[in-house]
Amino acid sequence: MAEQFTLHEDPRSGNCYKIKLTAALLGLPLATRQYDIMKGETRTPEFLANINANGRIPVLEIRDRESARFLPESNAACWYLASDSDLIPQDRYAQADMLRWMFFEQYNHEPNVATLRFWLTFVGKANLSEQQNAQIMAKRIAGCDALSVMNVELEDRRFLCGDKVTLADIALFAYTHVADEGGFHLSDYPNIAPWIERICSLPRFVPMQ
Amino acid sequence: MAEQFTLHEDPRSGNCYKIKLTAALLGLPLATRQYDIMKGETRTPEFLANINANGRIPVLEIRDRESARFLPESNAACWYLASDSDLIPQDRYAQADMLRWMFFEQYNHEPNVATLRFWLTFVGKANLSEQQNAQIMAKRIAGCDALSVMNVELEDRRFLCGDKVTLADIALFAYTHVADEGGFHLSDYPNIAPWIERICSLPRFVPMQ
Repeated sequence: MAEQFTLHEDPRSGNCYKIKLTAALLGLPLATRQYDIMKGETRTPEFLANINANGRIPVLEIRDRESARFLPESNAACWYLASDSDLIPQDRYAQADMLRWMFFEQYNHEPNVATLRFWLTFVGKANLSEQQNAQIMAKRIAGCDALSVMNVELEDRRFLCGDKVTLADIALFAYTHVADEGGFHLSDYPNIAPWIERICSLPRFVPMQ
Repeated sequence: MAEQFTLHEDPRSGNCYKIKLTAALLGLPLATRQYDIMKGETRTPEFLANINANGRIPVLEIRDRESARFLPESNAACWYLASDSDLIPQDRYAQADMLRWMFFEQYNHEPNVATLRFWLTFVGKANLSEQQNAQIMAKRIAGCDALSVMNVELEDRRFLCGDKVTLADIALFAYTHVADEGGFHLSDYPNIAPWIERICSLPRFVPMQ
């Protein structure tokens, strides 16, 4: 039996979408099981015990004849799916450079660009706590900084690591292409829109729901 | 000429220490060049143009006969140094699982455990902005959550990914072993102290400065 993959996800999450886009580009079948993070469905005792002790989605379930394994962290799940594919360069430096963008995504981009989208589009400005409101300005600045770093890098290349699409592009595309939902103005970063177009034009591309 | 490595660093940074520890465990020579992040030395036009457009350390400079390349992001630099070594498992799942901990480190652990250490030990409570003060409680809770996830995982294994030390341990050791400097009580996590001991006992281990 070949491995079977199930994504434990909330369809509104860009982190989950990364994994679906990776599977789609690779032509890999991927089942899904939905949770509503707004209702705490990833914090239930059952979820914590069986799916992810960290109480977060996405989690990639990898099932074969002998075992079911649960892999959290979106970028690690993409790495697993894309192993030995063209989405991961084999050259030592190119591979490290790709991972560099994926760590950048989790540290500099997601906590700002994705969090503001979540707060402003899904939670709603009127429902934010005082503490969340106090963080908006800092997250706005840090998110703009992250988009600027990408914009500079995309000045003279088609994709973040060169001529070919890699997991770095998938990881950063997920929340960048919906950054306007977090109040970011992508028109301020002229190299980003053509890069988004290139990704949307890839064979087997699937849009976010 | 073999590759020569230079770490652009601030010695107080755990992110820089990860790279020094990786190089030490592998027996690789690593030159260093120091910057004081408190004085903005990584935000100068020269640094931004030549070392890292993101204005951050660490950056690993990789120099050979033909080129000098600059690799940002601590975990990506560790990955580069450790390529083809025992610090990275070759098994597909084990490798993804190791990366899972490294992404967890950058998303769940570092922004809480390391940031509180930086604020409380280096900036000083009296010098924090109102906005920083307002975030302490949330970062305390999230940092404790991250340490708890590690503690559960270390219940029945010697290292985070099993019997052998990997980059996952190095990445998470850096700020965990000094978490008390951020006001965390490691005695609350009984499986963490023995894990720290195991890492400190590794051949060629070097302490943080």
